[in-house]
Amino acid sequence: MADVVNSNLLDLDGDVAQLTRQLCDIESVSGNETAVADAVEHALRGIGASGGTELEILRDGDTIVARTRLGKPERVVIAGHLDTVPLADNLPTWLDGDGDEQLIYGRGTADMKAGVAMQLSVAAALRNPQRDISWVFYDHEEVNAELNGLRRVTENHPDWLAGDFAVLGEPTKAGIEGGCNGTLRAEVTTRGRRAHSARAWMGVNAIHAAGHILSRLEAYQPQAKNVDGLDFQESLSAVAISGGVAGNVIPDECVVTVNYRFAPSMSASEAAEHLGTLFEGFELRVTDSAEGARPGLDRPAAAEFVAAIGGIPEAKVGWTDVARFSALGVPAVNFGPGDPLLAHKDDEHVPVAQIYQARDALLNWLEG
Amino acid sequence: MADVVNSNLLDLDGDVAQLTRQLCDIESVSGNETAVADAVEHALRGIGASGGTELEILRDGDTIVARTRLGKPERVVIAGHLDTVPLADNLPTWLDGDGDEQLIYGRGTADMKAGVAMQLSVAAALRNPQRDISWVFYDHEEVNAELNGLRRVTENHPDWLAGDFAVLGEPTKAGIEGGCNGTLRAEVTTRGRRAHSARAWMGVNAIHAAGHILSRLEAYQPQAKNVDGLDFQESLSAVAISGGVAGNVIPDECVVTVNYRFAPSMSASEAAEHLGTLFEGFELRVTDSAEGARPGLDRPAAAEFVAAIGGIPEAKVGWTDVARFSALGVPAVNFGPGDPLLAHKDDEHVPVAQIYQARDALLNWLEG
Repeated sequence: MADVVNSNLLDLDGDVAQLTRQLCDIESVSGNETAVADAVEHALRGIGASGGTELEILRDGDTIVARTRLGKPERVVIAGHLDTVPLADNLPTWLDGDGDEQLIYGRGTADMKAGVAMQLSVAAALRNPQRDISWVFYDHEEVNAELNGLRRVTENHPDWLAGDFAVLGEPTKAGIEGGCNGTLRAEVTTRGRRAHSARAWMGVNAIHAAGHILSRLEAYQPQAKNVDGLDFQESLSAVAISGGVAGNVIPDECVVTVNYRFAPSMSASEAAEHLGTLFEGFELRVTDSAEGARPGLDRPAAAEFVAAIGGIPEAKVGWTDVARFSALGVPAVNFGPGDPLLAHKDDEHVPVAQIYQARDALLNWLEG
Repeated sequence: MADVVNSNLLDLDGDVAQLTRQLCDIESVSGNETAVADAVEHALRGIGASGGTELEILRDGDTIVARTRLGKPERVVIAGHLDTVPLADNLPTWLDGDGDEQLIYGRGTADMKAGVAMQLSVAAALRNPQRDISWVFYDHEEVNAELNGLRRVTENHPDWLAGDFAVLGEPTKAGIEGGCNGTLRAEVTTRGRRAHSARAWMGVNAIHAAGHILSRLEAYQPQAKNVDGLDFQESLSAVAISGGVAGNVIPDECVVTVNYRFAPSMSASEAAEHLGTLFEGFELRVTDSAEGARPGLDRPAAAEFVAAIGGIPEAKVGWTDVARFSALGVPAVNFGPGDPLLAHKDDEHVPVAQIYQARDALLNWLEG
């Protein structure tokens, strides 16, 4: 591999690790995805001419859908986002180590240009796919959900995302992480009565009362729940607290913001009810929530995927866009090279061997 | 009494309730004391000519000191501030009720133009004082201590405030409130470790840990301490709390701001030590403090004052400028018409009968 890669002409038939570096080196912080989306579209359009399986190319903004039209009884969706979080002086990419230990460092390597490279490399290599496939490359995953390309396409062209099973190329160290936890944020509020702090006994201190909320949080024993055969670890955390009027005033209000990550066996409204019981006696207001996603490993396509990839599937704890597919009735799993704990880190990197492993496993499954 | 009073020519020899209204109706929110200070200075300069005891008049900004030079072995300082908190649509003053029940409503009536009227009326009426007297009228009491006129004079002309005993005309319902509690603010901080809230177990939640600070505050039993024969009720309160990084991050810091009001038998550094012991295991940083003031009722002048005024002296819980006299080695008490709980309230008012009572008691004491 050359040390620095600059061309926007992507070579899908070459080395998938090299392709990862090419994709990373086209900087695409959320909102700036057009150059990389153009390069991806151009490369996808060339697949048929190079002897690959012909693809129908669709585009909405910087989201591209490339799908086979083979009339197979089953269709799978394989999706990845093109954007990254802001740079941390970590582009262009660089290599570290040799051989099986080689790592590619740089923004987007783990989250998730290696996954995009895996998608493109497999799309070009497929000769005899056993299922119809919709490849999805989308924009604005790393920012406010309102901007999310997958959300936009769900609204504008829901048929583009139709399928029996979906794979999201988010980093999982090339293992299968099924479904995802839901997430809910709520404000738990205590009320008191103001008074001058020189005569504290004439007031009721709302911050002191919040100690009971915090002790319930500290005593809370989060559960791990088995859903469709996977264990989902829940959690409940204070993520903010605020109270206080002035340095000489007994405060009459204190607000604790909690974040509940709940297993996909529970709906968001059931999660809200659970918090209502836990914080009985306090005001509780849900400020935002997102449903979780069941792993759906009981679907035939999913079971065959698990068999083809090997290893033991695990539950995804963080919320990812698999929940968008779940909401469309499409069970989805995460599967891609890279360590999810390195996502957004300044020293983000991906092992080259993991890119090869994920790419080959995906190709084997689709060629069946 | 006329219903509305407007003249800046103060009549010190007339009705002290009428004088209270005149003083209130010269609006003097902190920073705007010049007009009322001018009126007070003019009136004080006229006392000798009207047959009263001649006064030496000194001025620094809008603070006026008027003192007798009789060569008596004892000198008392009688002080009051000229400024008020901002208006709440409560000027000019108005009357409510009749006879012994009559009330004067309006900004400054209780805090503390009735006290200032008491001072001026007694200064003009004195014919044969038993002690030398320094009358002090000062600016900027209701705002940042840096601006306080008494603080400024302490620095520029400490001799102006010299004396054996001081009376501050702050509202006490015409009773004697001796000394004052000290006050100290400190930040008590917990530390944790950030993590994504989807993987809460990889972090340490600093807000959850702050529950232990709040439960210590709630369990704390504040004491009442007897100092020089008066009971000072202490208190310890959270006045602010803050923590939180983002809605999906386990917070690594939480800061609880506490306000400790401590009896004047304790110094500010002893108060800080006490909090250090109480919050052992947490970071503690003192952000500001002010010493309390012992009531000093063992001084001969103070004992005679108590005997002359009558009633049972009580401890002042709030911090007042008596502490500035205490720091100069001058024991000080609060004594003035008006209810301290009405200070700064929109419906601030003072009973006319209480103004007469306080004025007569003060005159009797000074004439001996």
